[in-house]
Amino acid sequence: MRAQIMEREQNQVSSEAWQLAESSFEIDQNAVRETLFALGNGYIGLRGTHEERFDGFEASSIEGTFINGFYESSPLRYPETAYGLAKEHQFMLNVPNAKCINFSIEGEEFDLFTGEIVSYERSLDFRTGVLIRKLEWKSPAGRRLSVTSRRLVPFRRKNIFAIEYEVKLLNCSGTITLASVLDDGAKEVEEEGKPRYGAAVASVGGVTFDLLGIEQMENFSALIHRTRNSRLVLVSAIENDLVSPSGNSVKKETISTDQRYGQIYRARLEENGSICLTKFGAYFTSRDYPESELIGLAKKALKEARQVGFDALCAEQKEFLSEFWHYADNEIRGDDALNQGVHFNQFHLLQSVGRDGHTSIAAKGLTGEGYGGHYFWDAETYALPFYLYTRPEIARRMLEYRYSILDKARTRAREMSHSKGALYAWRTIAGEECSAYFPGGTAQYHINADIAYAVKQYHEATLDEEFMTKYGAEIVLETARIWIGIGSYIPKKNNQFCINEVTGPDEYTAMVNNNFYTNAMAQMHLKFAADIAAKMKKSQPTEFERLKTAIGLTDDEPKEWVKAALAMYLPYDQELGIHPQDDTFLYKKVWNLAENPRKSHDLPLHYHYLVIYRHQVCKQADVVLADFLLGDHFSAEDKKRDYDYYEAITTHDSSLSHCTFSVMASEIGYYDKAYQYFMKTARGDLDNLHKNTSYGVHVASMAGTWMAVVCGFGGMRAYQGKLQFAPYLPEKWEQYAFRIYFQSKLVLIEVDKNEVRYRLLEGDALQFSHYGTPIQLTKAAPVHVAKAVANKKAVAR
Amino acid sequence: MRAQIMEREQNQVSSEAWQLAESSFEIDQNAVRETLFALGNGYIGLRGTHEERFDGFEASSIEGTFINGFYESSPLRYPETAYGLAKEHQFMLNVPNAKCINFSIEGEEFDLFTGEIVSYERSLDFRTGVLIRKLEWKSPAGRRLSVTSRRLVPFRRKNIFAIEYEVKLLNCSGTITLASVLDDGAKEVEEEGKPRYGAAVASVGGVTFDLLGIEQMENFSALIHRTRNSRLVLVSAIENDLVSPSGNSVKKETISTDQRYGQIYRARLEENGSICLTKFGAYFTSRDYPESELIGLAKKALKEARQVGFDALCAEQKEFLSEFWHYADNEIRGDDALNQGVHFNQFHLLQSVGRDGHTSIAAKGLTGEGYGGHYFWDAETYALPFYLYTRPEIARRMLEYRYSILDKARTRAREMSHSKGALYAWRTIAGEECSAYFPGGTAQYHINADIAYAVKQYHEATLDEEFMTKYGAEIVLETARIWIGIGSYIPKKNNQFCINEVTGPDEYTAMVNNNFYTNAMAQMHLKFAADIAAKMKKSQPTEFERLKTAIGLTDDEPKEWVKAALAMYLPYDQELGIHPQDDTFLYKKVWNLAENPRKSHDLPLHYHYLVIYRHQVCKQADVVLADFLLGDHFSAEDKKRDYDYYEAITTHDSSLSHCTFSVMASEIGYYDKAYQYFMKTARGDLDNLHKNTSYGVHVASMAGTWMAVVCGFGGMRAYQGKLQFAPYLPEKWEQYAFRIYFQSKLVLIEVDKNEVRYRLLEGDALQFSHYGTPIQLTKAAPVHVAKAVANKKAVAR
Repeated sequence: MRAQIMEREQNQVSSEAWQLAESSFEIDQNAVRETLFALGNGYIGLRGTHEERFDGFEASSIEGTFINGFYESSPLRYPETAYGLAKEHQFMLNVPNAKCINFSIEGEEFDLFTGEIVSYERSLDFRTGVLIRKLEWKSPAGRRLSVTSRRLVPFRRKNIFAIEYEVKLLNCSGTITLASVLDDGAKEVEEEGKPRYGAAVASVGGVTFDLLGIEQMENFSALIHRTRNSRLVLVSAIENDLVSPSGNSVKKETISTDQRYGQIYRARLEENGSICLTKFGAYFTSRDYPESELIGLAKKALKEARQVGFDALCAEQKEFLSEFWHYADNEIRGDDALNQGVHFNQFHLLQSVGRDGHTSIAAKGLTGEGYGGHYFWDAETYALPFYLYTRPEIARRMLEYRYSILDKARTRAREMSHSKGALYAWRTIAGEECSAYFPGGTAQYHINADIAYAVKQYHEATLDEEFMTKYGAEIVLETARIWIGIGSYIPKKNNQFCINEVTGPDEYTAMVNNNFYTNAMAQMHLKFAADIAAKMKKSQPTEFERLKTAIGLTDDEPKEWVKAALAMYLPYDQELGIHPQDDTFLYKKVWNLAENPRKSHDLPLHYHYLVIYRHQVCKQADVVLADFLLGDHFSAEDKKRDYDYYEAITTHDSSLSHCTFSVMASEIGYYDKAYQYFMKTARGDLDNLHKNTSYGVHVASMAGTWMAVVCGFGGMRAYQGKLQFAPYLPEKWEQYAFRIYFQSKLVLIEVDKNEVRYRLLEGDALQFSHYGTPIQLTKAAPVHVAKAVANKKAVAR
Repeated sequence: MRAQIMEREQNQVSSEAWQLAESSFEIDQNAVRETLFALGNGYIGLRGTHEERFDGFEASSIEGTFINGFYESSPLRYPETAYGLAKEHQFMLNVPNAKCINFSIEGEEFDLFTGEIVSYERSLDFRTGVLIRKLEWKSPAGRRLSVTSRRLVPFRRKNIFAIEYEVKLLNCSGTITLASVLDDGAKEVEEEGKPRYGAAVASVGGVTFDLLGIEQMENFSALIHRTRNSRLVLVSAIENDLVSPSGNSVKKETISTDQRYGQIYRARLEENGSICLTKFGAYFTSRDYPESELIGLAKKALKEARQVGFDALCAEQKEFLSEFWHYADNEIRGDDALNQGVHFNQFHLLQSVGRDGHTSIAAKGLTGEGYGGHYFWDAETYALPFYLYTRPEIARRMLEYRYSILDKARTRAREMSHSKGALYAWRTIAGEECSAYFPGGTAQYHINADIAYAVKQYHEATLDEEFMTKYGAEIVLETARIWIGIGSYIPKKNNQFCINEVTGPDEYTAMVNNNFYTNAMAQMHLKFAADIAAKMKKSQPTEFERLKTAIGLTDDEPKEWVKAALAMYLPYDQELGIHPQDDTFLYKKVWNLAENPRKSHDLPLHYHYLVIYRHQVCKQADVVLADFLLGDHFSAEDKKRDYDYYEAITTHDSSLSHCTFSVMASEIGYYDKAYQYFMKTARGDLDNLHKNTSYGVHVASMAGTWMAVVCGFGGMRAYQGKLQFAPYLPEKWEQYAFRIYFQSKLVLIEVDKNEVRYRLLEGDALQFSHYGTPIQLTKAAPVHVAKAVANKKAVAR
């Protein structure tokens, strides 16, 4: 802990619970802060770069503006090719920067690197969603002035963002020249061969955009680009609105040089006079609208925003967030820094997730280009539960995204020789498989079950039948068929249903038979699919017939699913009393983690895959994750033995690992471990624990914080639609609280040293269990239960 | 058979037993014939392209001149990279074509595509090694002339080749203009993405050579090139020698335009007058000599060749071949076409193999660029036995090549995290791992044992202690250490020694535990290494100490080898009575070969690897190969059951498969099958059975022919240095004969319908067994044994 606290102090980020603030401009920390101060609304993502030109050393700033789901593609080229390998890489693009504002006073350009920064503060409040920077600057010639800017990306207005930028002269008068532009520079993608970031980017390089057109009129400037390969059109636009300084006239000029497009304003300011620019930016793409309408839409959105005005946008934003926190707030008392981390992570989760039904959440959200902006299974397995139990309509949108690419998954299934069904890509933006290393990609068939599991959880938590009829059933049935395609009844396994040659969640083992996680999840999936089919047949015969016809489902198939599920082979080792990760895992040599600790961080950077695969060593939870997700299927004793066995050989090289181990440590009663693992997620990005936050936040880990609190300390589960809690208070805390929205009811759970309090904030009544005891909660009558102790031994929940 | 005979007829290749001949110029067959008529001496390889300009349609001719072991390299680029992946591709280069000769008579250029070919014949005699083409041509204007050319690549002169080219006017007189040049055109490598040929070539393209210099004087022209990446220097040179036509003077000009360098001769010829050019070509590279000496060496070699003269070179060649056939000749009576195939294959094996100690034999010899000209395990496991039992000095040279790259194998072992020992590259030219798909490449650790096995066989067949001391011991000991590095005593396997995460010979299964072939071969390897160490310690203590010091061998290591060998886990399935290919093989679904026969040819062209790996389906012999190579370790019953089990699920998509199955079918007594598999190898290239002979011959399959005859029909084995035979006569034959050179004795085995005759042609006495009966053969007393019948049931040998 000591080291972390010191690091926090060094970072000089104040730790008030609801905001992130810095009180000085630190060049060394700048790239990390750009990530932390990034704004986004699930569609547009702006890194927290300064508006002005930035002259820091290389890598001290990473400019970035991202549009969720907007991508370029490039062919994947293999030195040795084969049938069915992923054909194209897709990657999120860094689009034209619309934030740029620069000014000079009497020819002296404002620059954070010249003159003197007299005072500086920047803050982002998680309840207002507005990034505010206030600074006072003394120019080299001694002119003093203040610059105040506010920035927001409205959650309620998908395609725009806004900046208010005010300059005030403090000890001088003179002519100010202020430029507000759209910057089309630096749109080339660099070649990169690094294993970690943007895997599959090695083959990409050069120009990704072609400029199709420029439109400038009045205060409006727009660029129209088309991507080279994916053939998507993007309109980037700005509209400037200058409040003229009292009394003085403003000269305006349009610029369109050096790849910068916008306005230059010139005005004379007296001492204490000020000038204030409001700038609106907009992005529209042909993924959402017809090409011909994009410019018109941009104009309209900008005009509307201008009419509404910056302050009203702020009010909207606050209102939106107020509602969000009403449902989402997790609060920890007794540790402000942790409380800040929890809120920060929740805020970034909201900023990162697509809410339009054809985007989802990328590994680094909208804060960096890592992993190509791809959507992985993390979206459903790690991030989705947070939304599901706070703002379920977001979870629905994420699943609608999966529905939107279901046809691509069908195509992929055919490529993989499955005559029926759909196989989701391991990593993708638009649906095509983009994983260039199939043993760690396409082989992870479990993604199909992960998505089905998310649909099941969604359905149980929302009872949203309309979603199921329209989307959910088709997703689940189509993806379930793949298990029949890949699996088979193996005589030498007593004709149990086996799933061979797959990779489970743990990527330090690849291409194995009967990965426990995969088989257990497939079993759940097959049962669920058969259930859906049976229920739909009964309650919605017409819709079911339509679905059957659409996907060519025969009456025999649901029977096959049940049969396969019942016969599913789930590896179990009698001697050790654990679930082997797969058929051969226990027959490998144990990797000695203690022997080479330094090299053990991210093994594929130091060892050939064959060396890693040859050993019992795990990158992340695999069996332990199954024990969590399907916890009602396995005994407490098995889960504990699994935990003990696998924890000893897990490196946690994946940021998905800590939270799962934290949750299961809580369940088992390893409270210290639960807390230690939780601490690795809660301030992971705030304290730059992975040393790479400058490249973007770690979304899955952020969601893991919520999971560790709610499912871990709170012991929340929702097996088969039944809500249950088993909360305890971590030793170091005074109190904590969290909220769960379930079947249209909102419950607040508060845990302190004396008791657990359940209060129903919305809905009439809610049934759940507390440590196995059924509770009927009504709005009128909160329930107080004494006393959940942190240090008791493992409790049967 | 009928179909094949028809195909032969279509091919119009005459089937005399000792030569290959064609009696017409067939454009459709031209590219295939270029392969069949290719000449080589194990260093220089010339495809059988015509000397003149060739105007056929695309792909009707594939120009090719190759130098064994001379290569360019290019970085291997992966769309998703990781530690330890092969870094560079190496590929055999198509070097400047020195064969080019063109002429015109009175301005009419001789061209096979204009005028009329009045008569045409081309032949290659396997006893003379000279390619002869005779044709008569009528020009468009009606001039008749004959062209006679002879070509050879001397086996005794590594760096040169020679052509004799005579033109005679038959019905006219006039001025002949004859150009003999070195052609530097078309040295760019095309980009190619095809899975089969030149796998790993996808990333290569563009210029591979830089021209450093040109030297021309008198009749000599030379080009000096350096490869872009591998930085190897090549000198290509020609020397022309024109016999002036009687009476008339010859005008000579030097040309150096259009990337063509050489001489143009102009002379007046009377009717029936002729002109005769002798051309010598030479190639020297910096892999063999210092750069500065290359030009001088080329001059010297060409001068010597010219002094010796074409006819004397032919005489040398004949003498060399006469000796070769004395030791190598396999003869079949009763089927000339087959007999031709057998000789053709032996001849090409001789032409293809490097004999200089730093080259070996590539998958397509020196006849095509397929597989990048890489050396694989085929060299030792398939090709080497042919040389070993006919011309063992060639086998020694191949093993010396392995010694020459032992340091590279040590480096590779370190990259693969083995602190000791050497791991040979799966495919390479200069020693570096060039396999870009590690599950089918680097994972094939068995290559280490394959090479050790070859050393063992070599030692037993030659008793060459000097080789062992100098090279063999170090190879075997260093490679043996890898088994200790990769393997481990697995508690759950009763602490047996297991080798996990490898790929066996069958590439339709990858990255498995305890591949039977690998474990069995590793066991042999470890024992052999310990034996060598023990013997050397005793008989050559000084040399042994020197070796120990050189490789840092401790006294404990040989003990560890013995321990591991004794504890080696060899999978055996009690129920089926077979050796499972690996730990999980029998737990996979059986691929239904009958279901999709067309798609079953080369599965990775039609199915994703994951689909293939998920099934019980074999590309080639794996367990069955172990049963052959280590046949004295397993019972006849097990071998038969293994054969039955695996044959049913083998596609034979590898050209290495048929011969192994043929040999084992013979051993088991499946005589019809033995013959059928043999027939797929014997005329494979002559009849273009794989439809891709135009890209080069199939070296392993050619060696397989020898193996099927000698080890199959002849039942020859040399387990633990003991020679044994168990010959039978295939039903369709009158008689066959083969020769075995063993421990400096040459034995001729003749098998006919009545008896088997053993005659000792060299050496005093030889002990061996005939169907288990010991025989002591002396030169004076041939042994006749009656009667080996083809159709008897399985015989215990």
